[in-house]
Amino acid sequence: MKAEIIAVGTELLLGQIVNTNAQTLSVKLAELGIDVYFQSVVGDNPGRLREAIEIGRKRADLLVFTGGLGPTQDDLTKEVLAQYLNRSLIIHEPSMDKIKALFSERGTHMVESNRKQAIMLEASEPLHNNAGLAVGVGVVQDGTAYLLLPGPPRELKAMLASSADQWLRQQIGNVKPLYSRILKFAGIGESNLEDQLLDLIEQQQETTLAPYAKEGEVALRVSVKAESEAIAEQKINAAVIQIKERVGHHLYAEQDIPIEVTIHQLLRSSRRTLASAESCTGGLFAELITSVPGSSGEFKGGVVTYTNEMKHQLLGIPLSMLEGDGAAGAVSEQTARLMADNMRQIANTDFAVSFTGVAGPGTAEGKPVGLVYIALAQREKDTAVYELKLGGDREMIRLRAVKAAQYRLWQALTQ
Amino acid sequence: MKAEIIAVGTELLLGQIVNTNAQTLSVKLAELGIDVYFQSVVGDNPGRLREAIEIGRKRADLLVFTGGLGPTQDDLTKEVLAQYLNRSLIIHEPSMDKIKALFSERGTHMVESNRKQAIMLEASEPLHNNAGLAVGVGVVQDGTAYLLLPGPPRELKAMLASSADQWLRQQIGNVKPLYSRILKFAGIGESNLEDQLLDLIEQQQETTLAPYAKEGEVALRVSVKAESEAIAEQKINAAVIQIKERVGHHLYAEQDIPIEVTIHQLLRSSRRTLASAESCTGGLFAELITSVPGSSGEFKGGVVTYTNEMKHQLLGIPLSMLEGDGAAGAVSEQTARLMADNMRQIANTDFAVSFTGVAGPGTAEGKPVGLVYIALAQREKDTAVYELKLGGDREMIRLRAVKAAQYRLWQALTQ
Repeated sequence: MKAEIIAVGTELLLGQIVNTNAQTLSVKLAELGIDVYFQSVVGDNPGRLREAIEIGRKRADLLVFTGGLGPTQDDLTKEVLAQYLNRSLIIHEPSMDKIKALFSERGTHMVESNRKQAIMLEASEPLHNNAGLAVGVGVVQDGTAYLLLPGPPRELKAMLASSADQWLRQQIGNVKPLYSRILKFAGIGESNLEDQLLDLIEQQQETTLAPYAKEGEVALRVSVKAESEAIAEQKINAAVIQIKERVGHHLYAEQDIPIEVTIHQLLRSSRRTLASAESCTGGLFAELITSVPGSSGEFKGGVVTYTNEMKHQLLGIPLSMLEGDGAAGAVSEQTARLMADNMRQIANTDFAVSFTGVAGPGTAEGKPVGLVYIALAQREKDTAVYELKLGGDREMIRLRAVKAAQYRLWQALTQ
Repeated sequence: MKAEIIAVGTELLLGQIVNTNAQTLSVKLAELGIDVYFQSVVGDNPGRLREAIEIGRKRADLLVFTGGLGPTQDDLTKEVLAQYLNRSLIIHEPSMDKIKALFSERGTHMVESNRKQAIMLEASEPLHNNAGLAVGVGVVQDGTAYLLLPGPPRELKAMLASSADQWLRQQIGNVKPLYSRILKFAGIGESNLEDQLLDLIEQQQETTLAPYAKEGEVALRVSVKAESEAIAEQKINAAVIQIKERVGHHLYAEQDIPIEVTIHQLLRSSRRTLASAESCTGGLFAELITSVPGSSGEFKGGVVTYTNEMKHQLLGIPLSMLEGDGAAGAVSEQTARLMADNMRQIANTDFAVSFTGVAGPGTAEGKPVGLVYIALAQREKDTAVYELKLGGDREMIRLRAVKAAQYRLWQALTQ
């Protein structure tokens, strides 16, 4: 099966946003064993969108659209395709009900244009969107399959994991699908991981290993084309055993989840609790751990002490440690240690992590950008402090510091 | 002049990399007043690349290629275009000399394949690449202009700032470039904004208005084609005056910055300080405000109190308000108010914001998902509490709650 991805949106042609959706879709289609030969981008213009459909139809069996399903006037993917296929547009009632319910919940009046998000082509399959309002559409005509998905990346991803995935699998029929498993690693860089697995990556024929990095984490996709899921599982398991022998001590999950999810699960199953005391990371550690649903059971809370005054007031760090001649300073091994110790005692938790460092762009206390101390305090154990020298911009330094602390916490939880 | 961008590379079709080059090129072409109607991506395959050239030639006057100029076998953009245009390939001697010099400097032997990077089409213009080895090519035939640029983003950008820029300006002659300004709004949704500006959006000829939403914020792009930047400024200013009359009370910036940057600037210029007390948002408010470099001057810090115990301990909220028969509960107007008041006093700041609510997916205290109370405490002013009923998933509810509080804080800072 040959596919073409058509992203719709003038903002892409003007360069206002990067076409990450094309990447998301390409990865997904590759996983399903569908070849992508072309990607196209076309603006919010009916004539040119129609032109793109005509061209795509000649060179592909499956056209996957992203964008143009929203409520505004320039959202017109469904309208143009309906006209092209000579089908009328109908209201998908469950989606309409959802939109109405949302507005009535908010107590605001539904703007007429929001109806647009509930339309679909007649005799097509509505695809549920659990992350937004616009319903997706799958339709097959004259041997070509058309899949219409929303433009907001969050909605696109949610649908590719659910309704759109099911629809795509129905279309492929009996192509040998590609099965894959994502392994997630902590405390190791992408090139280091690749180095340690290089011979496996090069020698593998049937099973392919592809490392990639995202959001401060490293993943390895293990893929195999197989007749059935059971056979695929067997082959993937064999590869995973080899991988674990080399880098098992960095492997925190055999699925694509961030490490905070694993940490949450480990805390929950061992009935242990956590708190955080952050300075340079500004709440990012807390934000990530609380992004996991149900984290309130294990994460009691934390502080963001951005000034010395607040470190003193909320955490009881002596000002003499933070300021003045001969003081260790806020960015120091001593302060990180005491922040973690005191936070753990204040919150009465099993673990507390702390962060203090220089995220940049400017230096602080004469200390260089990228110098970060993290500490991990544990009930009835010695507190460990780690000195990090991190590269990257402000955002990257903050993220890397948090990922380093999460790795140490995960280690402590699995010991 | 109409242009099409053609990115060449199988790695794009497999989703291994994001097509940031298309964005870079789109921005550049818009600046030069060249309309981009299509972007395409094609793999390292001669037949399909030729197909893409044929289609592009029919719908554009300028085809800009990126990728496929390198030394390896699958780099074939020059080869395919030369064949398509019936031109032979020749060696560009200065580029060849540069490649030879580099290898002799390194003391290594030049691999034969490196010669490929010095080739160009006969009777074409070589475009100097000061960031890499592959020479660019500009060529015009039968009324179509072809520009061949390298794939590595660093090399592409360097050439767009020098040799390719000059070549493009020669092609356009005296076309008017497009100028645009981004307006950013808070406290108003995309469809509501469009509704209020609908007649302006529809009636405008020369100046175009395009609303779009991203990351919980709403932006409006105001664009105009003009002979000079000064004339463009004038026309954009005229449009902005009309926009301000309608929705000026939501307009927080006339450039593409998140509202936390504006808040940071307003706090700094008025020498006022801020703290935060978060529950359901888990540190997201603090994380966003501290993502702004230099925010330590205004943001003193905050707490993330995820349990009642922590709300009591760190913020002094009476347990009788949080738990038990007849208590208001953690998710209540009263708790939000006291969290903000107490946080402001503890941190001794001019402002404090607080958040308490149900981010989901489960309900809490029998209260529905999406119910969030935010409070804004100000020195010597009454504390304001807002009840929000937010839609979306956990992540979206948290983001929307933070954006709502940022909007209220911005309002207070501009009063």
